[in-house]
Amino acid sequence: MSAPLVLITGAVTPDERAQLIGATPGLQLAFTERAGTDPDLLAVAEGLVGSPDAGELARAPRVRWVHSWAAGVDGIAAGGVLSEPIASGRVLLTAAKGSGAVPLAEHVLLLLLMLTRDVPRWLRAQEARHWDRYQHGELFGSRLGVIGSGRAGSELTARAAAFGMEVVQLRRGYDRAELETLLTTSDAIAITAPATRQTIGMLGDAEFALCARNPYYVCVSRGGIADDGALLRALRSGQLAGAGLDAHSTEPLPEDSPFWGEPHVIVTPHNAATTRATRQRGLDMLAHNLAVFASDGITGRFDGVVDPSAGY
Amino acid sequence: MSAPLVLITGAVTPDERAQLIGATPGLQLAFTERAGTDPDLLAVAEGLVGSPDAGELARAPRVRWVHSWAAGVDGIAAGGVLSEPIASGRVLLTAAKGSGAVPLAEHVLLLLLMLTRDVPRWLRAQEARHWDRYQHGELFGSRLGVIGSGRAGSELTARAAAFGMEVVQLRRGYDRAELETLLTTSDAIAITAPATRQTIGMLGDAEFALCARNPYYVCVSRGGIADDGALLRALRSGQLAGAGLDAHSTEPLPEDSPFWGEPHVIVTPHNAATTRATRQRGLDMLAHNLAVFASDGITGRFDGVVDPSAGY
Repeated sequence: MSAPLVLITGAVTPDERAQLIGATPGLQLAFTERAGTDPDLLAVAEGLVGSPDAGELARAPRVRWVHSWAAGVDGIAAGGVLSEPIASGRVLLTAAKGSGAVPLAEHVLLLLLMLTRDVPRWLRAQEARHWDRYQHGELFGSRLGVIGSGRAGSELTARAAAFGMEVVQLRRGYDRAELETLLTTSDAIAITAPATRQTIGMLGDAEFALCARNPYYVCVSRGGIADDGALLRALRSGQLAGAGLDAHSTEPLPEDSPFWGEPHVIVTPHNAATTRATRQRGLDMLAHNLAVFASDGITGRFDGVVDPSAGY
Repeated sequence: MSAPLVLITGAVTPDERAQLIGATPGLQLAFTERAGTDPDLLAVAEGLVGSPDAGELARAPRVRWVHSWAAGVDGIAAGGVLSEPIASGRVLLTAAKGSGAVPLAEHVLLLLLMLTRDVPRWLRAQEARHWDRYQHGELFGSRLGVIGSGRAGSELTARAAAFGMEVVQLRRGYDRAELETLLTTSDAIAITAPATRQTIGMLGDAEFALCARNPYYVCVSRGGIADDGALLRALRSGQLAGAGLDAHSTEPLPEDSPFWGEPHVIVTPHNAATTRATRQRGLDMLAHNLAVFASDGITGRFDGVVDPSAGY
């Protein structure tokens, strides 16, 4: 019996292929830009690395394991619903959870510092060779509400505490009163939560109306957790003092999106975690999971296992 | 005998005056924009708050104590030399040391994050509504060399450690080998040291030539600690990967300064510590020192005492 085939989709460099092949002598690895391009490989693959849609999964009857390069698996889900083989637990789903936690946390602090100090104003002044000195805020002593209990939220909490911020972290299974306390008392709100049926749209007009301290809003995980219209209204009414948006409900952010030009809004292009180290941590996790799959099949101790009922 | 007069120069709001007067019933406080404007007050003052030059001090024969609003007292010194009454120890010098330590540390992290991620590129892309996604660096795992052992250096060290940076801090009385190790091994170099005869010009061509890891250079205390010409040459040769400059050898930075337009250089207008909290911490220190002066004269336990031989 030949070694199980794992089909790895997406752009992988020769060095990265070498690392993965070297780590898993007990598997056959096939590399392709996109799963759907090769029906013969799909037909025999037992593992699939990438973000297969329901159609691709249907044409891959022998697949028992899917691993997502992305930490969030909403790209695999349609309308927040994972396809049947994964939802039913028949196919194990793992993801590079936490591979970007460190740079995500760094990005939140960057955006908060930029908002507190109005960095765009300094850069405009630099462009004009103009000495534009003004009073600004500090992070020290302010309260940060973190919505998200994963690794990015934990990395963020540790750094924010070192800045002398008081951190409240909303964890999975929170109740409404906890969310309301966070909204009412925070000077800044950071979203590191995944996009799931529970989180999409969880912040709307009613929630922003509770933001008594006119906080900054920062999102580095997924757009749409705050409703775009409500977010924009809260910014324009001054209910929110500003926003730093790396994740957007539509990506790339359309040219006519109002967020590009909104005052007190910093837009970055879903770029917070795009570092060499994130890629390497993701590769290391995949190499680990490939080795587990080779030795123990889907009963092994995988890293980054997704709970299909929670959606992350 | 009437209560001793302390002359407080500089812009002080009515609320701030009230705080200072309330804290020191045993003193007469006089407020003026600039000491030299009122020779009669100078002639009788026993304490002076501000940055008096040698001429003003000469016209203030009864002054026994000078307190600087600024944390650095190089503004009082001429060519790095404190005037005779202070240098000799006849007049006690105190300063608002550490009042800006927290926002200075925040600013260093802000500049390092901006440099590592090329934030100006993102803001240009936002202006153009252009989705410009690229790979960038992390602070995590990099080495930070801190030149400066005061409170800002300590606040910075604590925050950088929480980012997973390895920090080497150069302390007063360091030897040449320690400086060379810091320059050779750092991925980023941050200056929080005061301007003194020892620090001005301490980084020149020979020192930047040792920067083997092409570090970022950040200065938030005083310009001139790196020689401007040497700094520019190190940036243009790529020996330094970039710089974040809040403190400059001439301020305001002249319009024709090359630093304004230099690639990979972020200029801010000596604005790192300009926060309401810095002002309040400075006022609290002054109120404390006024109370000490009222009760114990110059033999009391002042905060922020300057060692005239060290210059800070």
